[in-house]
Amino acid sequence: MVDKEEFGSFITPEALKGMPIKATFLDEVTWDIPHQNWGVREWNQDFKAMKKMGINTVVMIRAGLGKWIASPFQTLLKKEDVYYPPVDLVEMFLTLADKYNMAFYFGMYDSGKYWQEGLFQKEIDLNMALIDEVWTKYGHHKSFQGWYLSQEISRRTKNMSKIYAEVGKHAKSISGNLTTMVSPYIHGVKTDQVLAGDKALSVKEHEEEWDEILDNVNGAVDIMAFQDGQVDYHELYDYLVINKKLADKYNMKCWTNIESFDRDMPIRFLPIKWEKLLLKLEAARKAGMENAITFEFSHFMSPNSAYLQAGHLYDRYCEHFNI
Amino acid sequence: MVDKEEFGSFITPEALKGMPIKATFLDEVTWDIPHQNWGVREWNQDFKAMKKMGINTVVMIRAGLGKWIASPFQTLLKKEDVYYPPVDLVEMFLTLADKYNMAFYFGMYDSGKYWQEGLFQKEIDLNMALIDEVWTKYGHHKSFQGWYLSQEISRRTKNMSKIYAEVGKHAKSISGNLTTMVSPYIHGVKTDQVLAGDKALSVKEHEEEWDEILDNVNGAVDIMAFQDGQVDYHELYDYLVINKKLADKYNMKCWTNIESFDRDMPIRFLPIKWEKLLLKLEAARKAGMENAITFEFSHFMSPNSAYLQAGHLYDRYCEHFNI
Amino acid sequence: MVDKEEFGSFITPEALKGMPIKATFLDEVTWDIPHQNWGVREWNQDFKAMKKMGINTVVMIRAGLGKWIASPFQTLLKKEDVYYPPVDLVEMFLTLADKYNMAFYFGMYDSGKYWQEGLFQKEIDLNMALIDEVWTKYGHHKSFQGWYLSQEISRRTKNMSKIYAEVGKHAKSISGNLTTMVSPYIHGVKTDQVLAGDKALSVKEHEEEWDEILDNVNGAVDIMAFQDGQVDYHELYDYLVINKKLADKYNMKCWTNIESFDRDMPIRFLPIKWEKLLLKLEAARKAGMENAITFEFSHFMSPNSAYLQAGHLYDRYCEHFNI
Repeated sequence: MVDKEEFGSFITPEALKGMPIKATFLDEVTWDIPHQNWGVREWNQDFKAMKKMGINTVVMIRAGLGKWIASPFQTLLKKEDVYYPPVDLVEMFLTLADKYNMAFYFGMYDSGKYWQEGLFQKEIDLNMALIDEVWTKYGHHKSFQGWYLSQEISRRTKNMSKIYAEVGKHAKSISGNLTTMVSPYIHGVKTDQVLAGDKALSVKEHEEEWDEILDNVNGAVDIMAFQDGQVDYHELYDYLVINKKLADKYNMKCWTNIESFDRDMPIRFLPIKWEKLLLKLEAARKAGMENAITFEFSHFMSPNSAYLQAGHLYDRYCEHFNI
Repeated sequence: MVDKEEFGSFITPEALKGMPIKATFLDEVTWDIPHQNWGVREWNQDFKAMKKMGINTVVMIRAGLGKWIASPFQTLLKKEDVYYPPVDLVEMFLTLADKYNMAFYFGMYDSGKYWQEGLFQKEIDLNMALIDEVWTKYGHHKSFQGWYLSQEISRRTKNMSKIYAEVGKHAKSISGNLTTMVSPYIHGVKTDQVLAGDKALSVKEHEEEWDEILDNVNGAVDIMAFQDGQVDYHELYDYLVINKKLADKYNMKCWTNIESFDRDMPIRFLPIKWEKLLLKLEAARKAGMENAITFEFSHFMSPNSAYLQAGHLYDRYCEHFNI
Repeated sequence: MVDKEEFGSFITPEALKGMPIKATFLDEVTWDIPHQNWGVREWNQDFKAMKKMGINTVVMIRAGLGKWIASPFQTLLKKEDVYYPPVDLVEMFLTLADKYNMAFYFGMYDSGKYWQEGLFQKEIDLNMALIDEVWTKYGHHKSFQGWYLSQEISRRTKNMSKIYAEVGKHAKSISGNLTTMVSPYIHGVKTDQVLAGDKALSVKEHEEEWDEILDNVNGAVDIMAFQDGQVDYHELYDYLVINKKLADKYNMKCWTNIESFDRDMPIRFLPIKWEKLLLKLEAARKAGMENAITFEFSHFMSPNSAYLQAGHLYDRYCEHFNI
């Protein structure tokens, strides 16, 4: 007989031990992940599943991307040619975060078009006004506990760090110094740029470039959570160690953004193999990461996901941590 | 507490109002959509779900494509090197359409190889014979109420309109003037051709080219249902207005073919986001479309779909229309 | 009323008759198929579904690929830079195969890097040591009944047949002459090479090249199971006839490796359409194949698959064979 109780007999004797995931992004205004078309009932179920797994922080990935926005923000509706949204996602997420006693971080608007030198100020201005509107309208929620600077920068886009600095400082100043977070990516072997022929950054080059970038945003960013999927599994630990060293130097918390989707498959993207997630969680634990946030629970780790592999990943995760 | 009754509190005050979808394609002999491997039991369930949502017309997308055919058509089996099919899909769809009191339109055979100048006559001849066979064999079904001219033409393939004209007229003449329908596409920014470097057609160019094409098929086509997914969301309304103007000029009904799959994602294709569908349904309503047919219910909007996002899209649709 | 009993009325009068599938690969250390993240409970359910369908043989596709390995093999952990695995998949699969009274074949390690001329010996040495370790540790299982030479060769990689010969002979010699199996592929129209511009091999060229390759591995291989998905459906029968002729000449059993995923769709890969599977099963039956193994049950034909189309394919298969 093989039943659940016997599962332990197939676990290998020296199996890795990961660190727990306590946060997730909410990817509703999305770039490349197909939508699940959930209403509040489905989101309520999903917050419940997050909570059970140990998640205490949800980060709305962005307030908008190009013409798509998460809520009817007047500052954007008036100044930009955006679509009027059917649902107030910010109010819904905050209501659910309140209910489940979680922290909610608000992600900034990404115009998708003001990233070029000379246009930065427009992106900054839009977000400055948005922050004011959002804090006035939603700031009363007890779960509103942070800001996420959503522009994903890397070496090629490091001038964007100006946006981080100005926007981050403003958000902190009007909200009683709430936490700010960024999630940049490493210029590694799995970036589109390197896959297209560019050279990946060595660990040493990575350290030098980010030392400069972080110097630019000093005082504006509290949490640095590098994405962990652009480097190979055996390379990850070395980059994480550098990230921690840099975070310490600039008085930031160092989280890891652990991707729960699989970058190695022809279908872009489905849930990651548990073995790969575990390798990354072990590397993060060993490198001293202070927390792990995943991109993202609802598509790739949730028992409610349309990708049924995600529910099995949830089960494997819960088994590993005896949840 | 957040429960279903509270959903309304997150709906935005000025949320759009779409027009209802009353028809769907049946995409069983498919070009690029993976099969669901349904038998009659699953199809029966799906017709039931269609009916509940308000669908009253089903359009079999094509009788065959290349070597694959929907039923053992003797005219094709004798003249073309096609595979003998395991199931008589036409009989099955008609039986279900009879049962659920729907209209069924029969889509023509697409050889996939007689599209070049000089070979058109072969495509026409095959379909002429097929129409005769099909009307004799299946015409007794009360749900057999129309013909679909399945060749999807656009500016580059406008000579194909000859096929429309001849085949459409013959189909009408032998069947007591049943309705005929076409569903061409706009040469817009999301066509493969334009994505590959070609220039999209402006609204004005679109009007001029289609004025010419429609003149060629005068009297052979009763319903024109342009696909709505090759232009961007904010461009759609302008094209729809022109389509309606053209349809009026040529005494056709103007439907919109609202795509329920998402063209903007790396996985080609999964169900569309409800917000996008709603934008298109609103544009169609405002532009005065007389009906909406979706491509297509069973994969992308059905609670029975293998893509679970589709079932959630169904729920969002039904909520919107209080179904 | 349409219910299941009436399904027969839509089956076509001359519908094809396939041969049954009695074996499947287990693709857990995978190249391009996303993982389902199953634990022993889910695998137990899946073996039960296999058994019900008539499967009596499971073939673990490979012991490892590059850095990923199926079990903590000491010979690989010591000599190669591989990741330590979380679960002993070999022990789990053998335990389940014992329970369900199936035969289990062990697939070799594929380094992914020693395929070039001059490095073959390294690949051979690793597998020689692995075979010894595996037989000592797992050989006591009653279900351990064969070896699978996992390197998928074709004309371009025919020198790899050296690996087949040496490894196959060693595996047989230490295990009391257990069965050995290979599953090469035809250099047909659907290979990546031909899709990229290379010329497909004609049936005659295929025969000549494989006559030479099989001569090289004489005595080391008992079962030859060509993959059936690289040629078009109407071409398959002719290739299968040659495969059978070659197998007979070299005293091998001739199986077909019937792919249950669809190579013709933009999503790479989802379950195949039942009609296509049936065409291939009929071609295999007519060509005298001695057995059919599928790649693979758990993703593409199983009622437990994350791809729900797979469960419907299972239902269609069971209906066809009155299971």
